Amino acid sequence: MVSIAILGFGVVGSGVAGVLTKNREQIDAAAGDAVRLKYIVDVRDFPDSPFAPLLTKDFSVVERDPDVRVVVETIGGCGVALEFTRRAILAGKHVVTSNKALVAAHGRELLELARLHNVNYFFEASVGGGIPVLRPLKFDLAGNQIICIRGILNGTTNYILTAMREEKLSLEEALRSAQSKGYAEANPTDDLNGMDAARKLAILSDLAWGREVRAEEIAREGIQNVSLKDVECAARLGGKLKLICEAKLLPEGGMTAFVAPQVVMPDSMLYAVDDAFNAVLITGNAVGDVMFYGTGAGSVPTASAVVGDVLDAVRHMGKRRDISWSGDPAVLSDPMAVSGRWFVRRGDVAAIADERPAVLAEEDAACYRVLEK
Amino acid sequence: MVSIAILGFGVVGSGVAGVLTKNREQIDAAAGDAVRLKYIVDVRDFPDSPFAPLLTKDFSVVERDPDVRVVVETIGGCGVALEFTRRAILAGKHVVTSNKALVAAHGRELLELARLHNVNYFFEASVGGGIPVLRPLKFDLAGNQIICIRGILNGTTNYILTAMREEKLSLEEALRSAQSKGYAEANPTDDLNGMDAARKLAILSDLAWGREVRAEEIAREGIQNVSLKDVECAARLGGKLKLICEAKLLPEGGMTAFVAPQVVMPDSMLYAVDDAFNAVLITGNAVGDVMFYGTGAGSVPTASAVVGDVLDAVRHMGKRRDISWSGDPAVLSDPMAVSGRWFVRRGDVAAIADERPAVLAEEDAACYRVLEK
Repeated sequence: MVSIAILGFGVVGSGVAGVLTKNREQIDAAAGDAVRLKYIVDVRDFPDSPFAPLLTKDFSVVERDPDVRVVVETIGGCGVALEFTRRAILAGKHVVTSNKALVAAHGRELLELARLHNVNYFFEASVGGGIPVLRPLKFDLAGNQIICIRGILNGTTNYILTAMREEKLSLEEALRSAQSKGYAEANPTDDLNGMDAARKLAILSDLAWGREVRAEEIAREGIQNVSLKDVECAARLGGKLKLICEAKLLPEGGMTAFVAPQVVMPDSMLYAVDDAFNAVLITGNAVGDVMFYGTGAGSVPTASAVVGDVLDAVRHMGKRRDISWSGDPAVLSDPMAVSGRWFVRRGDVAAIADERPAVLAEEDAACYRVLEK
Repeated sequence: MVSIAILGFGVVGSGVAGVLTKNREQIDAAAGDAVRLKYIVDVRDFPDSPFAPLLTKDFSVVERDPDVRVVVETIGGCGVALEFTRRAILAGKHVVTSNKALVAAHGRELLELARLHNVNYFFEASVGGGIPVLRPLKFDLAGNQIICIRGILNGTTNYILTAMREEKLSLEEALRSAQSKGYAEANPTDDLNGMDAARKLAILSDLAWGREVRAEEIAREGIQNVSLKDVECAARLGGKLKLICEAKLLPEGGMTAFVAPQVVMPDSMLYAVDDAFNAVLITGNAVGDVMFYGTGAGSVPTASAVVGDVLDAVRHMGKRRDISWSGDPAVLSDPMAVSGRWFVRRGDVAAIADERPAVLAEEDAACYRVLEK
């Protein structure tokens, strides 16, 4: 029997507890062993939860229990999550997380610590929720030179932009709709300004090119200034405005990475990715374009990826998967220097141009890149 | 250094040789060792190939060379490919293949033989060409009960149906176009009658549900009888006719699997999968819908999956990945008993109906299932 502990009984943590319980039979079969949830660590009380008997406020109980071989960190952020992750690894436990902020900021350090202690640090759920993408990128596509990664990696903004287009809502109205449906948090700042997407793009880039890409250094434009008029003018030209993460090798050498609203035309597979769905389109020099699509957030879908990682850890007890990247920082070229087509709106008139206008003097004007096919 | 041999220097085999050469640097980095092609076995001569010095007609050279740790079988079919695969496994070599006919017919037996000899038998490239799908299904989604698999798994028929719709070609004209572009072989029987797709669906079903599904037992309707009028009438109702592979658990217990042309409406992610592209939409009870999309055939894309498998074998020398399924045959229910909506065409008039008509008395008539969202 392999015992598991979950740190943080929030949206994802409770989803993991639920999936481990509901799918126990096939999880045990896939693990080749009984996988049992032994502790849930949270500072809050959940007296009405069926998991109440497993709850503890004291992480050191988990830390000291040699039965616990895998720790699931779903606390979020870089405070106590970082401390507990370090302590779990030092205690010789595998750690699985959905915490993109922690992986983007401290992933390399934690992978190195895991290597020294011969355990795994897995984070498939940190990018694209339940969609398998990091393991396929790192392993299945390992025979490729990765040329380009383009993705819709933030479900909140994709829901908002879809609602603006389909229901003719303002940004503020669409945000309220997203909040009422649970697709946006009370404080959606990191979603709207592209920071959440930039963290996920940093993790993908780290794995694809083997050098540290810092989320803070990714050129970033959020959707805060996207107007209903922008969305409607893009629609009249046949396109959809979407918050796109893009990182790629440049023909002249080097690479660039940026997060920005782009106009997506129907010739792209990302055109059909609406509502809160996520997708990642990866271009390799052998495989061409491959796309991974699914629910990029939410309790149970994200738990699917966490449990997949738990099973990988359980099946490889005592062994390590080589997932790491160099501490050399990647040098990112200015994306504004990358050529491409641009959507330019002046008042109610919009067109696609081959170059970015030098200035947009008008007050009521906007300019977005058109996603390359 | 790890030495590799390729059996069969055809479309896929030459692609593998090319990718191993072109991407040598990142392949060695991913393997943590130098991966070198030592032999190519083929009965034909290729005097002008840059790989000519590696060619041999004698498989026993490979079989007896202890340097060769991984054998890539890209011969195709179930004759000599089966014999050489058995002999390579018996000689203690890992085997990687793109041969769906062999995996569908003898996969379980070869996996069992590999288990006994502590080597791996990998076949990611047998389904969906370069698209990572088998490993994500078996490992990343292992925490899910798989409910449904729907896919476009034959690029030839998807190209033909796309060409009929977009260029108003007859089936025969579209087939000739596919042949002239290299998307269809001289003898396209197994593509047109759905057998190639059924083999891939059998492999996916084996892995998803752990029981042997025989390709021959999958209910199967090809595209031979699809007319331009069918395609045009479907288009007028907003749909696209596509050859769909579908396998799913039934609410009343048991499962069904079938290959048939279905009308795909724009609310499905499979709607946008045109030309020779492939996609697999997998529904899990935790993750919901996830889709894997890309180039489902071709020399270099398929080589990407083969090389990914080679790297998995090289990184796990002496270890085994547990990929297997029970010899108990899955009992497949009659798909005709599964409810759903139907596209019914009588002459030039078509409509979507809630039930399949008991009889289609008219000579100029057709009936296809509408793909469920």
